[in-house]
Amino acid sequence: MIEARHIEALKGLAGEKGLLTEEADMAAYETGARYDRGRAAFVARPATTAEASAIVSYCVRNAIALVPQSGNTGLVSGSTPDGSGRQGVLSLNRLTAPFDLDRVNRSVRAGAGLRLSDLNGRLEESGLFFPIDLGADPRLGGMIATNTGGSRFLRYGDVRRNVLGLTVVLADEAGTVLDLSSDLRKNNTGVDWKQLFIGTSGAFGVVTECVLNLEPAPKQSATALLVPASADQVATLLVAMEDALGSYLSAFEGMSGNAVAAALDHVPSLRNPFQGGVVPGFVILAEISRATPPRAGEQPLDAVLEEVLAAIWEREDAPLADAFVGQPHEIWALRHALSEGVKHRGRLIAFDLSFRRGDIMPFLAHMKAEMPDHFEDVTICDFGHIGDGGVHFNLVVAKDDPRLADPDFEADLREWVFTVAVEQFGGSFSAEHAIGRKNQAFCDRYTPEKLRALAAGLKTITSPGPLGTITF
Amino acid sequence: MIEARHIEALKGLAGEKGLLTEEADMAAYETGARYDRGRAAFVARPATTAEASAIVSYCVRNAIALVPQSGNTGLVSGSTPDGSGRQGVLSLNRLTAPFDLDRVNRSVRAGAGLRLSDLNGRLEESGLFFPIDLGADPRLGGMIATNTGGSRFLRYGDVRRNVLGLTVVLADEAGTVLDLSSDLRKNNTGVDWKQLFIGTSGAFGVVTECVLNLEPAPKQSATALLVPASADQVATLLVAMEDALGSYLSAFEGMSGNAVAAALDHVPSLRNPFQGGVVPGFVILAEISRATPPRAGEQPLDAVLEEVLAAIWEREDAPLADAFVGQPHEIWALRHALSEGVKHRGRLIAFDLSFRRGDIMPFLAHMKAEMPDHFEDVTICDFGHIGDGGVHFNLVVAKDDPRLADPDFEADLREWVFTVAVEQFGGSFSAEHAIGRKNQAFCDRYTPEKLRALAAGLKTITSPGPLGTITF
Repeated sequence: MIEARHIEALKGLAGEKGLLTEEADMAAYETGARYDRGRAAFVARPATTAEASAIVSYCVRNAIALVPQSGNTGLVSGSTPDGSGRQGVLSLNRLTAPFDLDRVNRSVRAGAGLRLSDLNGRLEESGLFFPIDLGADPRLGGMIATNTGGSRFLRYGDVRRNVLGLTVVLADEAGTVLDLSSDLRKNNTGVDWKQLFIGTSGAFGVVTECVLNLEPAPKQSATALLVPASADQVATLLVAMEDALGSYLSAFEGMSGNAVAAALDHVPSLRNPFQGGVVPGFVILAEISRATPPRAGEQPLDAVLEEVLAAIWEREDAPLADAFVGQPHEIWALRHALSEGVKHRGRLIAFDLSFRRGDIMPFLAHMKAEMPDHFEDVTICDFGHIGDGGVHFNLVVAKDDPRLADPDFEADLREWVFTVAVEQFGGSFSAEHAIGRKNQAFCDRYTPEKLRALAAGLKTITSPGPLGTITF
Repeated sequence: MIEARHIEALKGLAGEKGLLTEEADMAAYETGARYDRGRAAFVARPATTAEASAIVSYCVRNAIALVPQSGNTGLVSGSTPDGSGRQGVLSLNRLTAPFDLDRVNRSVRAGAGLRLSDLNGRLEESGLFFPIDLGADPRLGGMIATNTGGSRFLRYGDVRRNVLGLTVVLADEAGTVLDLSSDLRKNNTGVDWKQLFIGTSGAFGVVTECVLNLEPAPKQSATALLVPASADQVATLLVAMEDALGSYLSAFEGMSGNAVAAALDHVPSLRNPFQGGVVPGFVILAEISRATPPRAGEQPLDAVLEEVLAAIWEREDAPLADAFVGQPHEIWALRHALSEGVKHRGRLIAFDLSFRRGDIMPFLAHMKAEMPDHFEDVTICDFGHIGDGGVHFNLVVAKDDPRLADPDFEADLREWVFTVAVEQFGGSFSAEHAIGRKNQAFCDRYTPEKLRALAAGLKTITSPGPLGTITF
């Protein structure tokens, strides 16, 4: 428990609306999107960078640990307090100002507490958008702290690529505000400090404001479902599509038959698009899009996609077994339902991996072959982003499986998957979910000693106070 | 002078071919592309990362200052030794291995000593390229150390966006080799350390190897010269072009009439493309391109560009005074000759500035209006990258101008330009040339104290030894 005088002092700094201490009010901030249920000493909700600075400064001076929390949609226990009841939550959700669109510069200056959907809603009239496409609806600060990627990474990159500037509060005694809020695209005048606060889960400072690059919103798209001739041929298909389409190609997503079947079974609004209702073993969602309006005399994108697929189909070693161009909203609805569907199959044990693009299918084949020998009755329901190397490697176990009562079971499973993914296939154990308590142990194991020493040094010179859920 | 025993020891580490000490051999390494003529104690040319590590370690242990040098094409005195004769040059030019193309991953692992032209030459057959388009032909290590941008930034971004991994030698006693050589696109497992070595001119470590993202090479393009209705209308024209063309637009370059006229006068191979030979006050080069081959039934890109320009032309408040689609190679030849042309006009005093996109033309208008009151007989011959906010703000003074003998003249001029650009217009004093001795003073002035303290801390934990030409 935290002393009452600290609560009083923090109320003075954050205001009545800015500090929550009642259990009922705090519950939502203590509960994670997938795994967690912790206990917060308090939830501080500053409405300005200055308030955030004052709160952080007070906490550092009084050795009170803070966990920054943005939309709390993360999946690695990076934004909720532990069970001690001694950590305070620093919520960004009132930090929604400013909102300054610079139309000519194609940039926006926004509060880190703004939700992605609110940002894009407010941008709609301008014809611009922030091009990170996610299943969840996080707030901007958390997107920056985890460097989210998503389904259109292939075209637009990750958050890192689209951040021009940041305002950051450091966890030092002064609650120093670092103004890195440039709105320039080309600026090489020293260390690009903002990079240290992107993807590092709030360990080095709390992002309160950002300047984001915006892109012209797509005005046309065409989407197809592709069935590869074999798992081996997925890489060939990707290269063939990129050769023919270049940067038209805005998504190349992989979906295992198991994940697709789970979605079709559990999300009743979906229509089964496959011939005879038979779900193939592996399916690709390919999207092409343009930011330009349809123009008279221009081939519609559906026709472009069909023509490209036909040409690939006619190759002697055609990497395609089947393909059809369909309604984008229907196909994307299937893609977006995979996560929900898989959850209904049983207890989900999820991994967010990435590989060199050519290594994804070999990794999946290896796991399919080896799983029964290592762990019986574990179903692989993977899906992900073949175009950028990301795989949501989901494992499902029946909810009544007695092994779930044994904490070693999940630990052993995680151990095996990470070992194969990282050590054997040179992959990443966290592609786009970043780091939280959930993967701290693997971060410790796979970070070379020298980089851990550098991170400790960096922590000392930026935010020596206790901040966040993890240590690099 | 450096002691003979050090030279002997370094020869042992770098081999006979790896260490130059003769004045004639060292001259090219002591002379900068534009400004410098220093004196080197020696030039060490390691052929492997291990050799580089051994040399750096020896120098740190013996307090011998090293200046990393890549292609030596930089313009801010960032890669040549000072006049003391006590600094050694660490040249990357033998570090050209490895060269491992991963076609499926669209990436290449390459030695930092490889030239940009060699890289793209070796990639040609694959249909991929490294999408940084520059006038100079640097080596990769220097491109990374300066985070070069160039003329296609609008489409492909800067070097930072296209680096997947790095191998870096730190200037500590061990000459520690940091292996950050990931070839993954999505990888959020901690601090993205490679960012610290991009754009920081080698102050924190020497890049010896890199993994680069590659893009499908363009297969079609169309290029136009546009004359804006007025300087005020350039931003309107840019937005109109982006609205109509989205990411087709791969370049939107600004060229002052002064720079164009200088190129036409001094580069005889150029043809004057303007009606009656009259060069307008300001011209835009706009390029659209596609990575896809021409397809039957598809409108050729020239026609697309003409149609878009016609639609803009027909607007009531048309921001265009004149426009014509021409031969790409002819138009780009003009653009690439600007730098050469301007140099022939007299003594060049060059600035590499950037602004919010909407502030470029107001800045140029301000300088045109104010220059005569501040400095007589100084001609502004600017050109640059309107699409990303970059301006090569070139000032030309007659070669026999007596003020050139007075060192205060250039200093005063620089002082005034930087003050207006940075303090009045919120711009950057180094857009894409990064930092070297030439702009150290402005780096010191415009870097807030807190960031200087952080940089000093970072230097201590990475490369405490004397490395490079600058201090952040």
